[in-house]
Amino acid sequence: MDNLFIIKIGGNIVDDAAKLAAFLKDFSALPGNKVLVHGGGKVATKIGDSLGIVSKYVEGRRITDAATIDLVTMVYAGLINKKMVAALQQLGCNAMGVTGADANLVPAVKRPVKEIDYGFVGDVKSERLYAQTWQVLLDNGLVPVVAPITHDEKGQLLNTNADTMAQEIAKALSKAYNVSLLYSFEKAGVLLDVNDDASVVKQLNKTYYQQLKTAGKIFAGMIPKLDNAFAAIDAGVGRVIIGPAEALPALTTGAAGTTITNE
Amino acid sequence: MDNLFIIKIGGNIVDDAAKLAAFLKDFSALPGNKVLVHGGGKVATKIGDSLGIVSKYVEGRRITDAATIDLVTMVYAGLINKKMVAALQQLGCNAMGVTGADANLVPAVKRPVKEIDYGFVGDVKSERLYAQTWQVLLDNGLVPVVAPITHDEKGQLLNTNADTMAQEIAKALSKAYNVSLLYSFEKAGVLLDVNDDASVVKQLNKTYYQQLKTAGKIFAGMIPKLDNAFAAIDAGVGRVIIGPAEALPALTTGAAGTTITNE
Repeated sequence: MDNLFIIKIGGNIVDDAAKLAAFLKDFSALPGNKVLVHGGGKVATKIGDSLGIVSKYVEGRRITDAATIDLVTMVYAGLINKKMVAALQQLGCNAMGVTGADANLVPAVKRPVKEIDYGFVGDVKSERLYAQTWQVLLDNGLVPVVAPITHDEKGQLLNTNADTMAQEIAKALSKAYNVSLLYSFEKAGVLLDVNDDASVVKQLNKTYYQQLKTAGKIFAGMIPKLDNAFAAIDAGVGRVIIGPAEALPALTTGAAGTTITNE
Repeated sequence: MDNLFIIKIGGNIVDDAAKLAAFLKDFSALPGNKVLVHGGGKVATKIGDSLGIVSKYVEGRRITDAATIDLVTMVYAGLINKKMVAALQQLGCNAMGVTGADANLVPAVKRPVKEIDYGFVGDVKSERLYAQTWQVLLDNGLVPVVAPITHDEKGQLLNTNADTMAQEIAKALSKAYNVSLLYSFEKAGVLLDVNDDASVVKQLNKTYYQQLKTAGKIFAGMIPKLDNAFAAIDAGVGRVIIGPAEALPALTTGAAGTTITNE
């Protein structure tokens, strides 16, 4: 099977023009099949403020109401996505911006209302995420650049977590490619001391992860990302690496960041 | 050669939810290869007003400054495009939203400054608009839904007239397909009396067009559209039809609207 890199870039990098430009240069130089999944960044909040769209939170979780799904569709799928595509095209990378609605690449379902009504938030329908159209794009040398928007196949756009989208795409494409899933962000990887980049964990398996969690050594914000990473490995993704966006070439080889293993 | 319909839908239809829904239903039912090119509508102006982005005009021509290119990228390529894609997907049409920047589908150049500096407005580079990637999409059953945004291949997004984009795409793809270019809008076609839909001109060739223009019978707003249409015919597009979006099935056969001919 051919190799495929699926690279998620975090919102803090998206917000920083200089860091983003450096990352996109490294990304464009990466040979072979690749997919870029981007988060939202703070620009949606800023534009939302200008439009008088107030972010609503219930128990600390952001709610996507009708005005907010319009906002994130504009900002993620429009502004951020197309600027990235234009920048990558300039670098000779044949980027094509997509959402999960386009070509039905990532079907989802509106999150069922239990304790909290999250509004227009989509949970990916893994069983309906097929590799076929992704393969058409990749086999023709296109580089999908994915905004974290999905749809419910009934006409409704949905806001979807970009980490989850990257993981779901990686799982589905691992049937057709030898997938490396990279979560790139502003930190050096999984850190034992959140203030010390030198404390990065080079290799993390489930046993060690449980030990570190039990010892309270895993930063709370990392837990969903790591749960995602282990779920991907369990579902057949070749490798998952979490680490610094600014060292993308080293990240692709595992020389930087934290490599998640299933041993 | 296979048939291909390239259908431009006007801004007034895009602005009207009921008319748009009816159009998309007809569009999705149209068999074979097809491309949808959409205009912007008034929603960009409305959102721009909320964001404090004031539309600037010089000699009656709208200027695209830095804030405005961000605005139209958000609204055209984000909000309008992705809502249309989701609606078409619901109807079983495998829509894929694109701009000219995506996969470098429509390269352009920033309009040179002469009497007026139009700002970030793109003129399509016809000689660099290749059929190849369009064919990849169409041959795999995808239906491109095109927002009127291009790029200069140097990282800059550009605002581009949707009529012109439809015409340029039609010209380029006429090398690989038997192209019908349809301009669908809120009117019955080219009218001899702008207030009487029954006065529609069924067939229009260059001689008759010149006669009508000389007699002052062509509504000024139609002239760029008709010049575009004749340019398309001259460049090898099989046929061009201008007519009512609400009668799309009749428009595809030439039973409605004005058919432009080169006889």
